[in-house]
Amino acid sequence: MISDVSEMTNAGCVQFCPAFGETTANIAKMVGFIENADLDLIVFPELATSGYEFKNRDEAFELALELDNGAEIAQFKNLSADTDTVLVFGFAERSGEKVYNSSALIEPDGSVTVYRKIHLFDQEKFRFDPGDRPPGVKTTKVGRIGMLICFDWIFPEVTRKLALDGAQLICHPSNLVLDLCQKSMFARSVENCVFTLTCNRTGTENRAGRELTFTGGSQILSTRGKTLAVASAEGEEVISAAIEPKVTDDKNLTSNNHILKDRRPEFYKGLE
Amino acid sequence: MISDVSEMTNAGCVQFCPAFGETTANIAKMVGFIENADLDLIVFPELATSGYEFKNRDEAFELALELDNGAEIAQFKNLSADTDTVLVFGFAERSGEKVYNSSALIEPDGSVTVYRKIHLFDQEKFRFDPGDRPPGVKTTKVGRIGMLICFDWIFPEVTRKLALDGAQLICHPSNLVLDLCQKSMFARSVENCVFTLTCNRTGTENRAGRELTFTGGSQILSTRGKTLAVASAEGEEVISAAIEPKVTDDKNLTSNNHILKDRRPEFYKGLE
Repeated sequence: MISDVSEMTNAGCVQFCPAFGETTANIAKMVGFIENADLDLIVFPELATSGYEFKNRDEAFELALELDNGAEIAQFKNLSADTDTVLVFGFAERSGEKVYNSSALIEPDGSVTVYRKIHLFDQEKFRFDPGDRPPGVKTTKVGRIGMLICFDWIFPEVTRKLALDGAQLICHPSNLVLDLCQKSMFARSVENCVFTLTCNRTGTENRAGRELTFTGGSQILSTRGKTLAVASAEGEEVISAAIEPKVTDDKNLTSNNHILKDRRPEFYKGLE
Repeated sequence: MISDVSEMTNAGCVQFCPAFGETTANIAKMVGFIENADLDLIVFPELATSGYEFKNRDEAFELALELDNGAEIAQFKNLSADTDTVLVFGFAERSGEKVYNSSALIEPDGSVTVYRKIHLFDQEKFRFDPGDRPPGVKTTKVGRIGMLICFDWIFPEVTRKLALDGAQLICHPSNLVLDLCQKSMFARSVENCVFTLTCNRTGTENRAGRELTFTGGSQILSTRGKTLAVASAEGEEVISAAIEPKVTDDKNLTSNNHILKDRRPEFYKGLE
């Protein structure tokens, strides 16, 4: 299943501060990071192209990108191919009359996979449509990738489902304002035996009657919860680690405990 | 639903080192802790009455207690009534030809609730029968209690189910030999908005061809993952905290996010 996948992946998170509404400038900044990073996989924050604090749904709709029209996604596709880098980034996605808080997974072969956030946080409920499809796993040249977006972290069901579906790398674009997530991803990594890459943003936004400060602390955790790389709370930084995705396929915590096969779903009624 | 429940509960964990096979002495030690603790709820480690490292199933069977026969459970029932303390402790349970790694919840009114560990760790699979009933929630004078035993922690489904069933306090007798659990209970507390009381043991056992050192670090965590009390890695200690179980009933992380009602089970297929 993974014979065509590299043994080692240089995976990174680009923690930065998008400027609200400055799509062109934000993308130019992202392009610069990608061109200079020399990584196989790069994860960016949630809503990296637009910024976070939309005043309302109309503003989110206006600043959203379309997958099939416009130059932005095409630009990332070209860049992925040119640099042979798998890219994951958050963006506001316009689709017909809908607008989603989405994450794009763009591969060097030109394929684009989109996940639409299914658990919207706080005011996002008034700005976005909730994701309308289950989270899924995409096999890429760097391993099998599942995506979460920010607040999805608090629902263990999502990462669990991705792990059951074979995910090796959980790519997690975020705009976190608390530190509960960074401390909880230890459990997400360990309970599923997966690598987790949480890419948060930095900076402060004050647009919709409240001031939000994002907490940085982007991190890459091993299958045993070891911090392989971590960013500061405030800086714009690229963090990275050389990881071996296939180690996630050994789910044996002991010779008698396979952490997925040891599940006893007959006693979990009520979760679905 | 909780009108008959105390507002505040003094809840504790008794971290100690059971002597293998010395049931009478271990129970005497537990009795001493209970009589001196002046707490409303006390959680003891897993297999507190027997010790952990049985050489085989026969030995576990021999050292097991029966719920309805013998003096041991009756002694705890009397003690619970006399001290007005809710007790939770791990023990090997014999039932007909079966032997389970169980946890007893004993209340001052004489009621006894037993949970049989459903996820056996490593060699336990050769010593115990797997739990044959789903984990459940019991309403007590100190709040609604759900029990985990040790390795159950790594399966987020169990605590989630208990939270969905109304648990406020997760009582978690353990015999942990790693430190993955202690670091992961932060997520269990936060993702379910419950108090977690992990009571680990200390000491070393070397009986079945391997040496096991238990890692202590018993802890009581708040609904937001705050460490309310924590024990050392090696000492026999009583830790405690005054907690308010009803705060767990407010599952709103923000005014727009109820962490249980925000679940989207239609996208979690495959967990059951």
